[in-house]
Amino acid sequence: MDGAVTGAAKLKLYDLAGADPARRFSPYCWRVRMALAHKGLDVETIPWIYTEKQAIAPSGQGAVPVLVNGDKWVFDSWTIAEYLEDTYPDRPSLFGGGAGRALSRFFAGWADGVLNPGLLRFVLLDVWKQLDPRDQEYFRQTREKRVGTTLEAFTAEREKYLQGFRDSLLPLRLALKTQPFLGGDKPLQADYIVFGGFQWARTVSNFEVLPADDRVAAWRSRLLDLFGGLARKNPSISG
Amino acid sequence: MDGAVTGAAKLKLYDLAGADPARRFSPYCWRVRMALAHKGLDVETIPWIYTEKQAIAPSGQGAVPVLVNGDKWVFDSWTIAEYLEDTYPDRPSLFGGGAGRALSRFFAGWADGVLNPGLLRFVLLDVWKQLDPRDQEYFRQTREKRVGTTLEAFTAEREKYLQGFRDSLLPLRLALKTQPFLGGDKPLQADYIVFGGFQWARTVSNFEVLPADDRVAAWRSRLLDLFGGLARKNPSISG
Repeated sequence: MDGAVTGAAKLKLYDLAGADPARRFSPYCWRVRMALAHKGLDVETIPWIYTEKQAIAPSGQGAVPVLVNGDKWVFDSWTIAEYLEDTYPDRPSLFGGGAGRALSRFFAGWADGVLNPGLLRFVLLDVWKQLDPRDQEYFRQTREKRVGTTLEAFTAEREKYLQGFRDSLLPLRLALKTQPFLGGDKPLQADYIVFGGFQWARTVSNFEVLPADDRVAAWRSRLLDLFGGLARKNPSISG
Repeated sequence: MDGAVTGAAKLKLYDLAGADPARRFSPYCWRVRMALAHKGLDVETIPWIYTEKQAIAPSGQGAVPVLVNGDKWVFDSWTIAEYLEDTYPDRPSLFGGGAGRALSRFFAGWADGVLNPGLLRFVLLDVWKQLDPRDQEYFRQTREKRVGTTLEAFTAEREKYLQGFRDSLLPLRLALKTQPFLGGDKPLQADYIVFGGFQWARTVSNFEVLPADDRVAAWRSRLLDLFGGLARKNPSISG
């Protein structure tokens, strides 16, 4: 259970899990976990593996995160964040208003288009290692088709890509030069959108993608500390 | 003169100009030109060339944009945008509130760290060609030192970099998938921050950096149309 309970109806979240059901590693599920905690909403997270499509069939599609609120099923991390913002408007805002909501789209675009593809090069095989055996063949087949080679070959020379990846974080590094969070003095959904990628990587892999003295590492650490260390407490290979 | 006058004190903006004093090409000055028009503020733009450091000495530094409001001198495009937002709070907001202001930093980080360096590869020599003869030697010396080669060599094989540049715009393309502006239904300073780079490129160069069917090109066109075509009316090599 995450966050503080204050009489809200109990929400359920289907949350991608590994062979260890406590290991939750999806960058998109983490966007929602952090959003729920930001709103102070209690949630029951249900460990889910890729091949359990049937369990989330009522959502009308086959990927998590899926949020269930009574008889309402909501999927897609962006849609869920908007749903939470609109359903619980009196709780701390995830976007800081209409302008903030629109501007947050670019953070999703950057995370989906730059950050997460960059991280994939480092952690794809490590993800596979953490999967439930029932998921491993499915994951290998779909991902090897997507990247055009074996998981092993895709990640074999990952050190070669490290400097380029770190360089690609420059926009983040510049934005954090004058403020502790992308949202300013306090974190917003934009922070959680980006943080999801880093949390994904550290949960399945001990390959450190950030230099210790990087401003981005300090920001990641602040995110790990939020909500009583919600993200830090998640079982993680990086320790 | 830009924008509508409604009894505001006349502002002055030192604005980078070429051999044709009407050709204004600085991406940072364009951030301010658009911000002033967004606020509906009248401004007298003063054409300025790199070697006229003395003219802006009262600002305490040597680069434009520099805004003058009575005896107040303000420099740096971000600082000027904040100054306008705080000085004219009753006019249309550039940030849409505190969250939007903080989130806009990332757009500046992306423009400064990814977009404008990417465009530089295409237009650096073209910038030089448009400069006032008094600026050309200064510009060549300082820029060749910065890029480590001649202006001609730096841009000679620019076609080779075009696909990589277009790929680097993916975050922008994704953000604009569901809304006409980065700010949502209406443009905000985040749009102007990014647009400045594209306006810089088209003002000095006929090298087209966007495919015609790119969603980003449609967005650029919307920006060019704003405020009675303010940016479109600026003399431009791209026509």
